[in-house]
Amino acid sequence: MTPFDADAADPLASKRRQNLQRLLTPRSIAVVGASADPGKAGSQAMRSLSRFPGKLMAVHPREREIQGFPCYPSLSVLPEPVDLAILAIPAQHCVQAARDAAARGVGGIFIISGGFGESGEAGQALQEQLAEVCRSTGLRLLGPNTSGFVNPHQACVASFVPGVGQLAAGRVAVVAQSGGINLTLSFLLNRLGEGISLAVGLGNAVDVGSADVLSLLGDDPHTAVIALHLEGVPQGRHLFETLKKVTPKKPVVALVAGRSDIGEFAVSHTGNLIGSWERTAAALTQAGVVVVDSTEELAQAAAVLAAGRLRPNERNGFAVVTGQAGPGLLIVDGLKTAGLFVPELAPATIQTIGTLLPPMTYVKNPVDTGRPSPTFPEIVRHVAADPRIDATLVFALSEPSVLDPAKALRPAVALGKPVVFGTLGMAADLEGPLASLRDLGIPAVLSPERLVLAARCLDADARAQWRLARPLSGQAGVVEALSGKFDEARGKELLAQYGIRSPQRKLCVGREQALAAFAGLSKPVVVKIAAADVAHKTEAGGVVLNVRTDADLRQALDAIARIPTATPGRVLLEEMAPAGVELIVGGVRDPSWGPCVVIGLGGVTAEAMADSAVRLAPLGREDVNEMLASLRGKQLLDGFRNLPVCDRGAIAEAAIAIGRALMEHPEIAEIEINPLRMSQDGALALDALVVLRSGS
Amino acid sequence: MTPFDADAADPLASKRRQNLQRLLTPRSIAVVGASADPGKAGSQAMRSLSRFPGKLMAVHPREREIQGFPCYPSLSVLPEPVDLAILAIPAQHCVQAARDAAARGVGGIFIISGGFGESGEAGQALQEQLAEVCRSTGLRLLGPNTSGFVNPHQACVASFVPGVGQLAAGRVAVVAQSGGINLTLSFLLNRLGEGISLAVGLGNAVDVGSADVLSLLGDDPHTAVIALHLEGVPQGRHLFETLKKVTPKKPVVALVAGRSDIGEFAVSHTGNLIGSWERTAAALTQAGVVVVDSTEELAQAAAVLAAGRLRPNERNGFAVVTGQAGPGLLIVDGLKTAGLFVPELAPATIQTIGTLLPPMTYVKNPVDTGRPSPTFPEIVRHVAADPRIDATLVFALSEPSVLDPAKALRPAVALGKPVVFGTLGMAADLEGPLASLRDLGIPAVLSPERLVLAARCLDADARAQWRLARPLSGQAGVVEALSGKFDEARGKELLAQYGIRSPQRKLCVGREQALAAFAGLSKPVVVKIAAADVAHKTEAGGVVLNVRTDADLRQALDAIARIPTATPGRVLLEEMAPAGVELIVGGVRDPSWGPCVVIGLGGVTAEAMADSAVRLAPLGREDVNEMLASLRGKQLLDGFRNLPVCDRGAIAEAAIAIGRALMEHPEIAEIEINPLRMSQDGALALDALVVLRSGS
Repeated sequence: MTPFDADAADPLASKRRQNLQRLLTPRSIAVVGASADPGKAGSQAMRSLSRFPGKLMAVHPREREIQGFPCYPSLSVLPEPVDLAILAIPAQHCVQAARDAAARGVGGIFIISGGFGESGEAGQALQEQLAEVCRSTGLRLLGPNTSGFVNPHQACVASFVPGVGQLAAGRVAVVAQSGGINLTLSFLLNRLGEGISLAVGLGNAVDVGSADVLSLLGDDPHTAVIALHLEGVPQGRHLFETLKKVTPKKPVVALVAGRSDIGEFAVSHTGNLIGSWERTAAALTQAGVVVVDSTEELAQAAAVLAAGRLRPNERNGFAVVTGQAGPGLLIVDGLKTAGLFVPELAPATIQTIGTLLPPMTYVKNPVDTGRPSPTFPEIVRHVAADPRIDATLVFALSEPSVLDPAKALRPAVALGKPVVFGTLGMAADLEGPLASLRDLGIPAVLSPERLVLAARCLDADARAQWRLARPLSGQAGVVEALSGKFDEARGKELLAQYGIRSPQRKLCVGREQALAAFAGLSKPVVVKIAAADVAHKTEAGGVVLNVRTDADLRQALDAIARIPTATPGRVLLEEMAPAGVELIVGGVRDPSWGPCVVIGLGGVTAEAMADSAVRLAPLGREDVNEMLASLRGKQLLDGFRNLPVCDRGAIAEAAIAIGRALMEHPEIAEIEINPLRMSQDGALALDALVVLRSGS
Repeated sequence: MTPFDADAADPLASKRRQNLQRLLTPRSIAVVGASADPGKAGSQAMRSLSRFPGKLMAVHPREREIQGFPCYPSLSVLPEPVDLAILAIPAQHCVQAARDAAARGVGGIFIISGGFGESGEAGQALQEQLAEVCRSTGLRLLGPNTSGFVNPHQACVASFVPGVGQLAAGRVAVVAQSGGINLTLSFLLNRLGEGISLAVGLGNAVDVGSADVLSLLGDDPHTAVIALHLEGVPQGRHLFETLKKVTPKKPVVALVAGRSDIGEFAVSHTGNLIGSWERTAAALTQAGVVVVDSTEELAQAAAVLAAGRLRPNERNGFAVVTGQAGPGLLIVDGLKTAGLFVPELAPATIQTIGTLLPPMTYVKNPVDTGRPSPTFPEIVRHVAADPRIDATLVFALSEPSVLDPAKALRPAVALGKPVVFGTLGMAADLEGPLASLRDLGIPAVLSPERLVLAARCLDADARAQWRLARPLSGQAGVVEALSGKFDEARGKELLAQYGIRSPQRKLCVGREQALAAFAGLSKPVVVKIAAADVAHKTEAGGVVLNVRTDADLRQALDAIARIPTATPGRVLLEEMAPAGVELIVGGVRDPSWGPCVVIGLGGVTAEAMADSAVRLAPLGREDVNEMLASLRGKQLLDGFRNLPVCDRGAIAEAAIAIGRALMEHPEIAEIEINPLRMSQDGALALDALVVLRSGS
């Protein structure tokens, strides 16, 4: 199984996918460890399935019938191969049960008990045996160590947390690493009036991982949007490739745990290490996922996107129509702070609206209607129809006597562009209007800031889909492998092969060569030690700047000669680049996500502020533009103070090339241009670091 | 009225305060413009007051009785001076009504109609006349251009937005610039099950401003916490001083609009310009207010702090006890990302809890109980009792059969430290438990992240109160006023008077003096033009670094002599400071907030990232520590890479001194040290800018 396409190398791939489908949408279920004792897990599992319309049977070594369902002594003697077997038995019996299940042709199993990878060595061994059964037979395993799943469309409640059986069937799928978060999200969605298509907690994810479920859900007709929760991601590149296929079909919103260092507790939870939060969030974004910051945002964003997404578009114009100025101010403030586009309405729209409102009101965008008047529906429709507007956000406090939201928004919604409604009022007053809006498919949110969240998610989704449809530039070709050690000069040669320029330079051995080379270079020149065994050249005194005369050069060579190295006398003479803005462009190989490219601003201040952006290689031009736009100090690129305007195209070329180098040379462990000097001469690599994997 | 203490200079201060109390807690009300026509505002106002237990009367030029209440032809002929007159009449009649009200001894008036400062010149003139009536008589005016106020404890609904009459009486006061936000917050609080002590929208705030209401609420026995919303703040310093007196009495939480540029629409809303968001947020924080980011956060934070605050404390230890690992992970992640303190529990606590839980669970902090067991209450109590713990956050999904939250938390709550509960479940399952928790005074929140918000607010409140109780260092004395122009040398002399050192230097006129001075200074030396009319010395070529020899010096003097100035030949020779970290410490005078001190990291990168912090002078040592802790690049101060460890005490002294200079010299418009070089030699001002107000 390669990390790039798990399915291609898996002879059981099609069976595995089919079995996962059986597991999650079962028509027949067996409960192993079923029991008449109401306190036992097996009994609870049977009760949870009381509304299950398919075939239900029990497995127990001695009983013949439990809670009115037929009972068999083991999975291997079931009268038919059920789609799902729920194992409510101690951990140490689960491996044999899994083997029995596979032998009888069961689709998948779900293990209720803990005591596996999260609990030490013995549990880890059991977990590996389970994994081996799945690998070799195609049996699917959900968990262990999770609260299970709910498929309300099938009345299948494979979980015994109270209340989950009452979750309404709907269009939001929840895929959570953690069983607790699966339930948290399901309950939050329920509070928002949203139904569930599938809610699954993956737990230790020994076999069924998020990519497997996402891939299925991409084609699930009940699912309009997917809410994803991730902790650690062991096979990131596979998840990335899967998501790139799923997000064009339906929006995916995600929450990633582990922004801070919570390592030890995280391992105790699911046995997984949490990798770099930044790389996970970047990879998801790059794959078209909308990344949010909390469970509440995740549920709300999913509810909004379930109602419809914007068509793929680089920039989306948002309009705000508000019945109250104060909330309108917060909404516009939030949109602008988030960097969203709030265009002034077209003159014709402003003129028309001006005839519908008293002269005191503000109508350019936001449109502040004052207290909603009878012209409110017409105003919203005119705003939504404005060619500069892609989506309309409407806020009005509940005033049943003057505004019926569903009636007011229907004409605008008929135009086919997203309209999101925000409101607040006494709960009883809101019930009717919210139900009517739901019937019309208009998402409604209960605060000004949730309208901003809705806009952010609509925009991020549409922009990502626009970007995903554009060509990538850094696709890898086939090249010869590299080996040996790299010093700066050899590093720059490699960069040159990838089209990244460095200043004019000469690698010299000995004083004579250096003096001769010096004559042919434009002054001033920088003299650098050329030694693969000196890592921090500047700190070691191995870099002398502003060398203008032969005397300067001799002095510099004397100084460098004092630095201990296995290759004495080797120096690099290089023309000094014009002043400008410095960036760092680097490539690393993440154990989960594979080749990644990092762009950061140069210098110790930017480093201290951790102002950098990361994406997975290969990169497209738009990926690099997004990376640069995400830098806190991005105005440094646009002619800040006395600095030159940087050529973003040249930065993109360098970053794309670094990505391509990583893809074409799996033997490169790390590659870095630090700094990439941006000046009126374009982009110049002033230093180059290349580290091959040990053994290369 | 000085901006520093509005009350002291106001002869009507006590009457004004009393009249505001009458306005907001009236025992008698007159509605001017009362009407029998149910569509009219005056009629709606009468209906809104249907449950008002005090005296209600109407004013109408012709009627004798309206809706069963006695009616009089004008305010001036009322049988008694009512506490509140509600004006439901057109804008142009309001000034005369205000005069009548003042003449009859009415406490205050509330104007329903718009058409004042927000709507152009004519309205502005009316507004100024109203202000003059208030100034000269002590009559108070709420609004105009607001939805009014609700005082549920008095059954006083001076607002006719539907539903507000049903808001329950409670302990949260809402003070909002905008009427719409007042209602938004009130409805959000209602959804959280919180009652209101007073909810007021200030609108144009011609007379009654937020400081007036806050001051009253500080002593209001019904109010446990204040939720504040601000747009523009015209008299910031007065608000600041008021808040410093209120926050030690009860917590204040605030939301500030205007983080992005929303100027034009904001003016159209209440006629106020929105000032610097950063300064407003900083001033509020400094005064002990907890600043949050959204209406939902504001409502939730108020609900949590209404239940109790932490005692003043610099650092607070938070414990997390969770029934489900996934949400626990998000909570701990959120706490750590917010920089909160999550100490490992004391060994004795860990040991005790170890006896109460199966061995697989994690118990160091967070404590992950797995599914809540019967020992849950005891575990929570042991955690809360741990001496390292100041507040305990408990999360458990609703499982009525295994956990009764109120019972589970009661033993821990009895210890007297804050306990906050987070949960989710089906709404019907949560109703009972939430009601029981409310009865016990335990705040409950409905998501993992809201527990993090609760902790952030408890912590920020306790830390701010700890800081406010510490002495300020930068109190102003009485000094002689400055006048004239400042060049760098004179600026450094002023800094020296405030204890801020600069490198050894000599101000020289002419080449002879310069050569003589040069001999007495340690090399290398920097030579700078000394001319008040050259603003950007470096850009003009007026700064020559690394001058070591007489020849170097002559060359430097030649170069500087070529720069045009009214005072040729004046140069400053200064010993060059050791390399280190550069900061900018500046003082400005904000039109609303008065003297402010700004600290930022030096250099163009930090400037591009806008990495700076601001506070109002005078400053305490702890204010400066908070400023430094808020810098994104703060690790530059702690020995980053090859940089020295900076002496934070020396930075604090410089910042405090800059604040004192601003306080003692009202004639200073702007003062800046750029850079303040921090090295092994301590803090050295390498440049000084002092600008006096024109006329000084």
